[in-house]
Amino acid sequence: MPSPRIDNLQYANWSEKIFRQMRIGGVDAVHVTIAYHENFREAVLNVEAFNRWFEQFPDLIFQGKTAEDVSLAQATGRTAIFFGFQNPSPIEDDIRLVQVWHDLGVRFMQLTYNNQSLLATGCYEAEDNGITRMGREVIREMNRVGMVIDMSHSGERSTLEAIEISSRPIAITHANPGFWHSALRNKSDRVLQALAESGGMLGFSMYPHHLKGGSDCTVAEFAKMIARTVDKMGADRLGIGSDLCQDHPDSVVEWMRNGRWSKTIDYGEGSASAAGFPPQPTWFHDNRDFGNIAAALVAVGLSAGEVAGIMGGNWHRFYANSFAGENHGKT
Amino acid sequence: MPSPRIDNLQYANWSEKIFRQMRIGGVDAVHVTIAYHENFREAVLNVEAFNRWFEQFPDLIFQGKTAEDVSLAQATGRTAIFFGFQNPSPIEDDIRLVQVWHDLGVRFMQLTYNNQSLLATGCYEAEDNGITRMGREVIREMNRVGMVIDMSHSGERSTLEAIEISSRPIAITHANPGFWHSALRNKSDRVLQALAESGGMLGFSMYPHHLKGGSDCTVAEFAKMIARTVDKMGADRLGIGSDLCQDHPDSVVEWMRNGRWSKTIDYGEGSASAAGFPPQPTWFHDNRDFGNIAAALVAVGLSAGEVAGIMGGNWHRFYANSFAGENHGKT
Repeated sequence: MPSPRIDNLQYANWSEKIFRQMRIGGVDAVHVTIAYHENFREAVLNVEAFNRWFEQFPDLIFQGKTAEDVSLAQATGRTAIFFGFQNPSPIEDDIRLVQVWHDLGVRFMQLTYNNQSLLATGCYEAEDNGITRMGREVIREMNRVGMVIDMSHSGERSTLEAIEISSRPIAITHANPGFWHSALRNKSDRVLQALAESGGMLGFSMYPHHLKGGSDCTVAEFAKMIARTVDKMGADRLGIGSDLCQDHPDSVVEWMRNGRWSKTIDYGEGSASAAGFPPQPTWFHDNRDFGNIAAALVAVGLSAGEVAGIMGGNWHRFYANSFAGENHGKT
Repeated sequence: MPSPRIDNLQYANWSEKIFRQMRIGGVDAVHVTIAYHENFREAVLNVEAFNRWFEQFPDLIFQGKTAEDVSLAQATGRTAIFFGFQNPSPIEDDIRLVQVWHDLGVRFMQLTYNNQSLLATGCYEAEDNGITRMGREVIREMNRVGMVIDMSHSGERSTLEAIEISSRPIAITHANPGFWHSALRNKSDRVLQALAESGGMLGFSMYPHHLKGGSDCTVAEFAKMIARTVDKMGADRLGIGSDLCQDHPDSVVEWMRNGRWSKTIDYGEGSASAAGFPPQPTWFHDNRDFGNIAAALVAVGLSAGEVAGIMGGNWHRFYANSFAGENHGKT
């Protein structure tokens, strides 16, 4: 079986059109966000929405729970959908919900989304106190059941501590290196080095606010940045986490940024004059465009094996090592 | 592998002691009740409690989700615990929670517990209007995902309609024939015949209120009743559903009967003068006593194969045909 194509972060306004685009683009697996600020019950409703789509479009998508499901997707010409949270809000204050969510298929959870959470500090807070008491317990529980710690939206200190505390490699599913484009959401050399040394994964984001030059960034510049990151982190620790937010009205970006936590509007990476979703770069509109990135990676001089790894093989290997529990008591 | 020993209904005050008694009694699988009146979130808390025990006692128990897990239990000398509800309260008014619960391992759900529910009529109501509009939809959904319809506490008409509407065989997990001991909870010949003809299963209860003579019923009388039921239903449609309610204070039987639905105390099968749990029959105190029943079934003249089936083989085969979804979209 050839190396799969995996996008390790999308949050779209899901529809048959998008699922068909995944197939046209040859995307074998997608990690989808099913919660930004939702509490437990609300996030279950989002699971229900996906269950409806799984029932409606069984020839296009199915729920992925294991690395083998990516191979099954390849073998059957469908896309495996893996659930994840961008915020720990769906576990509320209850550590035992980590296992419940793992049983429901959740495979990634961010410890924070921009703000302070019960577990860690987000990248938009002025101060970062690191991993909280509950955060240490939840990291251990996530390690136990096989749920990946995602620090994409976390502060620097919290991220470094999570790498240190976690007994299993963690992920930054969607962010770019700060050396290329300085942004609160992009990551320092120190974080990237600690991530690589611990066996963790970085997913490159195509969200314009994470790109040098924003929406005008070229695919050649993007590929060149990836090649530089290969030099720093090694080619095996890298993948794609496009942060594709397709077909959403601007009200959704407001929900992502503000949830229920603020009465005054927070513009996140945007601004009052550019409050909505920025336009996608011309070379990545949707799931049909991953070939543009693969071609640019070849053009910038990466080997066929390195490109295959970055386009999905590395995430696939990471899935295989991350999603099974340390001991589910069965063997 | 020899035929497994299965008890298809218990609701105990779970403890290491009881799990050890399951091992001493050679019980390979138990269907345990995790909800009487709990709403969705409360039933999740009960799952969490079992997850704690699974983590604490991995050498004694693990969560069973498939018929193969019964064989795994036999091979590894442990007891597979299968979840079930005695009331549809954990799906609230949301049919999509059926699949969520199936993903969390729930394999049996009663459509009613004594009273009218959103789905059907309970056996204590004066009138039985049969399966409701939502009930028809939920039966179809349970058929689809592989959750068994249990009508132990339902009214006669609702039970007959459930058998008719369901595309898969249903179960009466814990009740006895009315021809032996007339009680609102025991079942008429008409129900038993329809159940047997549709491929359904009856689990014999050792709860004293379901026994002729109550707590004084002898195991020989119990076995004779089973032999008579074999004549009516065939030996393949029968199993054990002990309704063991071990180590609970009497306050729990009050919760089982009254939940939050009544301000005046309902005594269910008891009475004001006998409000608590009745004493168990001398031949069945706990999980160590299944051998008494097997021996009595041999003594009453059933064949070794019939006894093996009733003691667990029949439930095992029923599990194999019942727990997998009609189409989970994976193949």
